[in-house]
Amino acid sequence: MSADRLSSVSKEVKPESVLLHPLGTAAAPEQELLCIFGTGDLGRSLGQRLLQSGYRVVYGSRRPHSCGPLPLGAQATSHEAAAQSAGVVFICIHRGHYDFLETLAPQLEGKVLVDVSNNLKKNIYPEANAEYLQRLIPGAHVVKAFNTLSAWGLQNGPSDANRQVFLCGNSAEAKQAVAEMSTKLGLTVLDKGSLSAARELEDFPLQLFPEWRLPLRVAVGLTAFFFFYLLIRDIIYAYVVQGKDVSFRIMVSLANKVFPIVSLIMLCLCYLPGVIAAFLQLYRGTKYRRFPDWLDRWMLCRKQLGLIALGFAFLHVLYTLVIPIRYYVRFRIAEHTISQIKENTTSVFDTTTAWRADSYYSMGILGFGLFILLGITSLPSVTNALSWREFSFIQSKLGYLTVFFCTFHTYLYGWSRFLNPSSYKWYTPQAYLLSLVVPSLLIVLKLLLLLPCVDRSLIRIRQGWERNDPEDSSAKAL
Amino acid sequence: MSADRLSSVSKEVKPESVLLHPLGTAAAPEQELLCIFGTGDLGRSLGQRLLQSGYRVVYGSRRPHSCGPLPLGAQATSHEAAAQSAGVVFICIHRGHYDFLETLAPQLEGKVLVDVSNNLKKNIYPEANAEYLQRLIPGAHVVKAFNTLSAWGLQNGPSDANRQVFLCGNSAEAKQAVAEMSTKLGLTVLDKGSLSAARELEDFPLQLFPEWRLPLRVAVGLTAFFFFYLLIRDIIYAYVVQGKDVSFRIMVSLANKVFPIVSLIMLCLCYLPGVIAAFLQLYRGTKYRRFPDWLDRWMLCRKQLGLIALGFAFLHVLYTLVIPIRYYVRFRIAEHTISQIKENTTSVFDTTTAWRADSYYSMGILGFGLFILLGITSLPSVTNALSWREFSFIQSKLGYLTVFFCTFHTYLYGWSRFLNPSSYKWYTPQAYLLSLVVPSLLIVLKLLLLLPCVDRSLIRIRQGWERNDPEDSSAKAL
Amino acid sequence: MSADRLSSVSKEVKPESVLLHPLGTAAAPEQELLCIFGTGDLGRSLGQRLLQSGYRVVYGSRRPHSCGPLPLGAQATSHEAAAQSAGVVFICIHRGHYDFLETLAPQLEGKVLVDVSNNLKKNIYPEANAEYLQRLIPGAHVVKAFNTLSAWGLQNGPSDANRQVFLCGNSAEAKQAVAEMSTKLGLTVLDKGSLSAARELEDFPLQLFPEWRLPLRVAVGLTAFFFFYLLIRDIIYAYVVQGKDVSFRIMVSLANKVFPIVSLIMLCLCYLPGVIAAFLQLYRGTKYRRFPDWLDRWMLCRKQLGLIALGFAFLHVLYTLVIPIRYYVRFRIAEHTISQIKENTTSVFDTTTAWRADSYYSMGILGFGLFILLGITSLPSVTNALSWREFSFIQSKLGYLTVFFCTFHTYLYGWSRFLNPSSYKWYTPQAYLLSLVVPSLLIVLKLLLLLPCVDRSLIRIRQGWERNDPEDSSAKAL
Repeated sequence: MSADRLSSVSKEVKPESVLLHPLGTAAAPEQELLCIFGTGDLGRSLGQRLLQSGYRVVYGSRRPHSCGPLPLGAQATSHEAAAQSAGVVFICIHRGHYDFLETLAPQLEGKVLVDVSNNLKKNIYPEANAEYLQRLIPGAHVVKAFNTLSAWGLQNGPSDANRQVFLCGNSAEAKQAVAEMSTKLGLTVLDKGSLSAARELEDFPLQLFPEWRLPLRVAVGLTAFFFFYLLIRDIIYAYVVQGKDVSFRIMVSLANKVFPIVSLIMLCLCYLPGVIAAFLQLYRGTKYRRFPDWLDRWMLCRKQLGLIALGFAFLHVLYTLVIPIRYYVRFRIAEHTISQIKENTTSVFDTTTAWRADSYYSMGILGFGLFILLGITSLPSVTNALSWREFSFIQSKLGYLTVFFCTFHTYLYGWSRFLNPSSYKWYTPQAYLLSLVVPSLLIVLKLLLLLPCVDRSLIRIRQGWERNDPEDSSAKAL
Repeated sequence: MSADRLSSVSKEVKPESVLLHPLGTAAAPEQELLCIFGTGDLGRSLGQRLLQSGYRVVYGSRRPHSCGPLPLGAQATSHEAAAQSAGVVFICIHRGHYDFLETLAPQLEGKVLVDVSNNLKKNIYPEANAEYLQRLIPGAHVVKAFNTLSAWGLQNGPSDANRQVFLCGNSAEAKQAVAEMSTKLGLTVLDKGSLSAARELEDFPLQLFPEWRLPLRVAVGLTAFFFFYLLIRDIIYAYVVQGKDVSFRIMVSLANKVFPIVSLIMLCLCYLPGVIAAFLQLYRGTKYRRFPDWLDRWMLCRKQLGLIALGFAFLHVLYTLVIPIRYYVRFRIAEHTISQIKENTTSVFDTTTAWRADSYYSMGILGFGLFILLGITSLPSVTNALSWREFSFIQSKLGYLTVFFCTFHTYLYGWSRFLNPSSYKWYTPQAYLLSLVVPSLLIVLKLLLLLPCVDRSLIRIRQGWERNDPEDSSAKAL
Repeated sequence: MSADRLSSVSKEVKPESVLLHPLGTAAAPEQELLCIFGTGDLGRSLGQRLLQSGYRVVYGSRRPHSCGPLPLGAQATSHEAAAQSAGVVFICIHRGHYDFLETLAPQLEGKVLVDVSNNLKKNIYPEANAEYLQRLIPGAHVVKAFNTLSAWGLQNGPSDANRQVFLCGNSAEAKQAVAEMSTKLGLTVLDKGSLSAARELEDFPLQLFPEWRLPLRVAVGLTAFFFFYLLIRDIIYAYVVQGKDVSFRIMVSLANKVFPIVSLIMLCLCYLPGVIAAFLQLYRGTKYRRFPDWLDRWMLCRKQLGLIALGFAFLHVLYTLVIPIRYYVRFRIAEHTISQIKENTTSVFDTTTAWRADSYYSMGILGFGLFILLGITSLPSVTNALSWREFSFIQSKLGYLTVFFCTFHTYLYGWSRFLNPSSYKWYTPQAYLLSLVVPSLLIVLKLLLLLPCVDRSLIRIRQGWERNDPEDSSAKAL
């Protein structure tokens, strides 16, 4: 097929032959050849993806004729020949075997070497793999890239994998070459600067939920505290004072007190920093000063706090619904009915109790329903489908409604119990009273912020107005 | 590093030195310089993202030496110098401060000005921000873009944000420059035409669930109707006729009638328009005529109707499962047992009732399980992973199965109750009877469509056949 | 607007006029013109998308002046004129009408023809649509592409649709032209090779859950087996031996035995292949040999096995929670209470039973909670947000914790029942005993793998060490 026959372009809709060339950016008569060292999982996946994106691929191998199954269309040759034939060489071998690359230094001179390697643990080598590679072959242009992608993700195309490619390197041209290749593979490039950022990139795939750590610690701390608090009040108190062994209550009754308490507190901890930030802005009279570090860190883990709270709320719901099929509960109900008959007493139906109990369940159900909704809108793909205003409407307006429902649910649970002196075992208040401190504080602070005068000031500050700098507002930035 | 040393390309796998240039589309010896006016959140996020994508960035600022923390690698200078040095200027300042740009008109002459601004409310200015900017600096090429992206999304890369960039402008070259920049940032461009579309683009981030409005109104309307209907029949009737105060039933019993009724009706409303459309196509004998507006609008909000129905079904499930722990229910059961003993009556176990009750629960559970499945496949990321045939299999086949289970569940709930004259309080039918009208109609219509002869006609019509135009089918479009 | 006035580029931040050209890859003075044959849904959606991405579009139509509503900015003309004016022609018409294209062969000579068509069923034509098109017009360069995208997805931009475009064709230049167009539309290209792959591409949208078939068959098989097993033991045995009709138990009691049993077995089937693979690698002493086909196939459907198990577990939870509101259960409880009173017996509260029952529920709830967590991290958008280490932590560590909780839950359910001779009706063991075989085996095998010596060997093998080839480890691939 000659290039002339394919060529055609037009200025208007008129019947004449035209050129195709502008369609293909450079009307490349030939696809690029790329070289891959290493025929392992990653090397083969990368090669297949490159071939599918229109590149030609040659593998460098110790045993070019027995290196196992290669992607269809790829060739294999010696490391030397492969390195010399292509401008870009992907190093898909373990760092432990980099040393043999030194012997290829003449062939790799001036080439772009893409280091895709990862380590199994952090800090096992004194320098990053990519920096070590650069030191071995000083004449090459090492670019660290693709190490955050899995072989699996590469093979199945970017729709099933993270599309972000982080890269770094000392040569701008080399980075641009890799960046354009990535774009052709359907990936998005984020340049992280010079090769000294390689260590950071190599630590990425070894991260284990860094942003979940603080929230998880808070959750574990609160759970442990309330578990022991309730263990002492409910189980040990009964054993010591009343001589009864109710230890079996740990499994469901006690768990079903710990979970809702921690859930409510963590839900409120997720909205508290926003309120604190607002008061700080009001106090400072400007939005242009950075928040203190602890507040920044707190605000960055709000989503995680909320999701853990949702998990605990979910367990609370299941523990509650399982109540009527518990052996203990069935036994108590039968016992109660039998004793009523034997003693021939009749309990009178109390409408207030019915109202309270039903409202208590209703608030809980509605609060949980809204909480689930908040959780669903936290799913990345749902979040992305929302406009900024929609997202903030749900996470803020509906979020506070959830806080209100859940707090009210807890108040209805307690009702007048806190007035009962016998509930203060060993002079400690009931756990639900402790759990109401943060929510009540949050709701009071939020109501203060909703006062028209406070609200107005806050809106002005958030639009860029500064209390101490009223004249110099000529060109406020977005 | 000389460009020669980096260069290498090959035709075959043969050991000779080759050129790298084709890899870099233009082998740019230098990265583009872009200018950003405004050092606020958005300006800084945008700058950081541009730097990470390989651009150089210069900020224009009133106070270049004290404009706060800028992204690493960015420079800051006066507005004049910054504007002159770059071909593209991002205007990241509030519309309220645009007027000072007029003084920069000579420096901005012929430049591409990217207006990224948004307003806090709709319709507060007579013209779009971008049009105002164009009027201020007629010699520049204003492009409206990026305003639907959040600073947060820009900073964290497109994998966590909406990737779609809407742009509009009067200059095709300027738009293309911005489009290519967007592509390099990993974003996808949708050209919305000339600058007169700027108003529409500026209204995008201010949208609040436009496609949810109709379904929400339907939900609120149905909920209100059935709430008052049941309030009158269940609470007020008992108070007026029997003199009993059962108002506490509002919180759970009544809610647990309203939610399932509205859920069932809305689930069917989500499948009804498809059936109506089919009958319309059969009646017209062609698929090439537009549906009436009301049907179009109805069909566009089917997903939302279904999701609201799922939310109500979820609440129904929770309200149902909470029944046995209600004070009222426990009181009634104990009362019943006690009365049986006192009167020494023995109720006989009725297998038919057991069958009916268990089938009723089973249908409800299976229907709800399928409904949850439909909901999960509505999540954007799950929908995207399905082929067209898979999606339509789930949403159509499994959808009708859900409708069937839920309708059957309701019929089993009613059983022979509708025969009981005492259930027609104040001559009104029970609410569940009302809720069965739409589902029964839907199922009958759907069964009609499944008749082989009707089905065949419909398939032919949907393949492009037209009853009134049989000869002219020479080149039917897909 | 002259191109000179727009042009500007800079080397440093210095006030001088510069060129814009490098911004636009080719500074195209004119947008490409593309031709679309067919003005149906797909043709119009494709045209609109192309126009929004900056192309000009001309439609070829039999009736250019009455072909219905076209996207704003598109022109319509005769097929001949349209074909001649553009280098790329999209064929958006049904295969059944391709034959008329033969008459346009002269105009289509040397053009790129993009075949986007799909069929309604597999294997209705002897050759792929694209191959048929190529045969009709041998002088054109046919590229199969876009057929996996829906008209709806095209119209609404790639954020709501699968971004992957599969293409194939015999001309590399033609494929590159289409690939670049796709990239501009925000889509990612995967080249599937020559036109002989067109059949495969045309079968894609007709796929109906191919990877779900094996797991669904396993689920149906297990469900059927346990249903009949329990039907015989629980219903038929009672009828034959005791003469009681308890057939109503099918709907809830029996279902609530089948669902948890199948769920537990399938959850374990989802972790078993990983353990088998580990033992195989240990036995072989290398990771470089392929697994047998059955194991490969099994490993590829682990996610589906797990999700079906989660669905069954969800139904089990609902069936369990519905227990206390069942007519049968309420009747039995009342009967039991009444008989206790009449016979004046008092049952004694048994702490061990309370512990066992509550632990049983607690394990079940925690297991189900973790199972839900596993399900949520299987959502594509959540999976993508996790690093590789995070994903494997959740799916492996938390997965085994789920297996442990659920197995322990089942053991607690059974307790000492298996010792009771009367439970061996017709010499068959209870169903829960059968369900414990696979989980117990899995846990034992996994514990063996966790032995320090075995674990060390496995890690070495997975790092590339080979037992039979210790010296030749000079350059192990990643």
